[in-house]
Amino acid sequence: MQSSLKILSEHACFGGAQRFYEHDSTVIGLPMRYSVYLPPQAKQAAVPALLYLAGLTCNEETFMIKAGAQRLAAELGLALICPDTSPRGEAPQSIAGATASWDFGIGAGFYLDAIQAPWAQFWRMESYLIKELLPMVTSTLPIDADRIGIFGHSMGGHGALTLALKYPGKFKSLSAFAPICAPTQCPWGEKAFTGYLGSDRSTWAAHDASYLMQSRTTAPYPAGILIDQGLADKFLPEQLHPHLFEAACASVSQALTLRRHAGYDHGYYFISTFMQDHLQHHADRL
Amino acid sequence: MQSSLKILSEHACFGGAQRFYEHDSTVIGLPMRYSVYLPPQAKQAAVPALLYLAGLTCNEETFMIKAGAQRLAAELGLALICPDTSPRGEAPQSIAGATASWDFGIGAGFYLDAIQAPWAQFWRMESYLIKELLPMVTSTLPIDADRIGIFGHSMGGHGALTLALKYPGKFKSLSAFAPICAPTQCPWGEKAFTGYLGSDRSTWAAHDASYLMQSRTTAPYPAGILIDQGLADKFLPEQLHPHLFEAACASVSQALTLRRHAGYDHGYYFISTFMQDHLQHHADRL
Repeated sequence: MQSSLKILSEHACFGGAQRFYEHDSTVIGLPMRYSVYLPPQAKQAAVPALLYLAGLTCNEETFMIKAGAQRLAAELGLALICPDTSPRGEAPQSIAGATASWDFGIGAGFYLDAIQAPWAQFWRMESYLIKELLPMVTSTLPIDADRIGIFGHSMGGHGALTLALKYPGKFKSLSAFAPICAPTQCPWGEKAFTGYLGSDRSTWAAHDASYLMQSRTTAPYPAGILIDQGLADKFLPEQLHPHLFEAACASVSQALTLRRHAGYDHGYYFISTFMQDHLQHHADRL
Repeated sequence: MQSSLKILSEHACFGGAQRFYEHDSTVIGLPMRYSVYLPPQAKQAAVPALLYLAGLTCNEETFMIKAGAQRLAAELGLALICPDTSPRGEAPQSIAGATASWDFGIGAGFYLDAIQAPWAQFWRMESYLIKELLPMVTSTLPIDADRIGIFGHSMGGHGALTLALKYPGKFKSLSAFAPICAPTQCPWGEKAFTGYLGSDRSTWAAHDASYLMQSRTTAPYPAGILIDQGLADKFLPEQLHPHLFEAACASVSQALTLRRHAGYDHGYYFISTFMQDHLQHHADRL
């Protein structure tokens, strides 16, 4: 099993190991890449881990290069796992429309399983993460499958919030940076859902974090959810709608710490500033 | 003066400001870019600053994106200044040989003034840094010109060591990550110096940190120099020669902390791991 799994590169980092992997994904039917940071504590015993989902145009390297998370992960004894944001390679790239825009297709998988042709063949990031990547990393690396948290940025914040709500118990902790909180009500989400799910909007709500939260009867994360949002984020007014997720949490008494930061934008200078608080949030709950 | 100076982008980061600038350089005769991180303390008073010189193929963004230095700079109240690694644009790029290799020409200025045609026209990074960039940033930003330290990586480590030795008193503190310590005795240096300085090797020693240190009669940095070097660095055996700089320091009783780290390579995962020690080294001396 997973005989195709190979390490593309490995770098010593804060006493641990920063690795980049490639494997032949059976769910997607293509080679997929992901990255893992193993803290020094993983040399002794299985450690808890955080799955980080990146935003539009990013890949499995972005977070590891830009977020400055390894120092804190090494201190806290947390592994970090970062997948790519969509299928890659000749076959998906050759689909008409796959590379025409930066917010759909390649680099924009939205962490769901497409049901519309031609996307349904390869764009299966939800099943890939849940059924293949997580089982694989927890079986091949010293990572404790019972102590996994999830977080992400922008499109990846949407991914983190929705997967955490779709798979109760799978993730023990949850946070996000500037997430797309209500994709059924913003241009990015409408474009992606129309393409991947079709124009029948009744299929959309199952992939919208605010709907998913609102439809709960009890708070799914009683230990609380952390979201940071910059107020100088140019995508805030039209795309992100954190107030809708805030209202949904309030409706089910879900504890939410939603921090709005004056002056901060949508990029990794913002993310890195608040990374320590997120890793501590997860470490306290794992 | 410097009416051409403009901010290309600004990002809030750890309570301070990450900025990217462009200006028309009079020394180089072309537009040049540089980046500055201003810590929150700079809102109150002029702060000390570190000039960081990046390695081959890098530009003014690399360090700010990859090194994870802003968090520490914000804590310590240090500004960070990072120039590009060579002239850029159509005119220098059109010179025959300027883009043929990654270790010469564009992205490989070696922080000296070329004296050979055709490079002497634009490749004047030493004069640019000393006569133009530092005076400009210290006159336009809340940075204390009397408290400037210098550090760098690889080619930029060579730049930091040589500029610190060429301009006594200009820099109050000095460190380097995996520097090219003896460019007159390694392939990178021989290629660059032959191109920029010519085949007469008598002109080379003035740009070789080990020669410069050895030719001193007293230790130029009595408070000590810090160098970190990874032992899994693939460039170590042929290109870097830290033992020659170590011997040169010993010959003039220059205190040198040269740390050799098992397992670490040449990249930013190595640099970020030891960034805290370097910023603390400088902060203690500024």
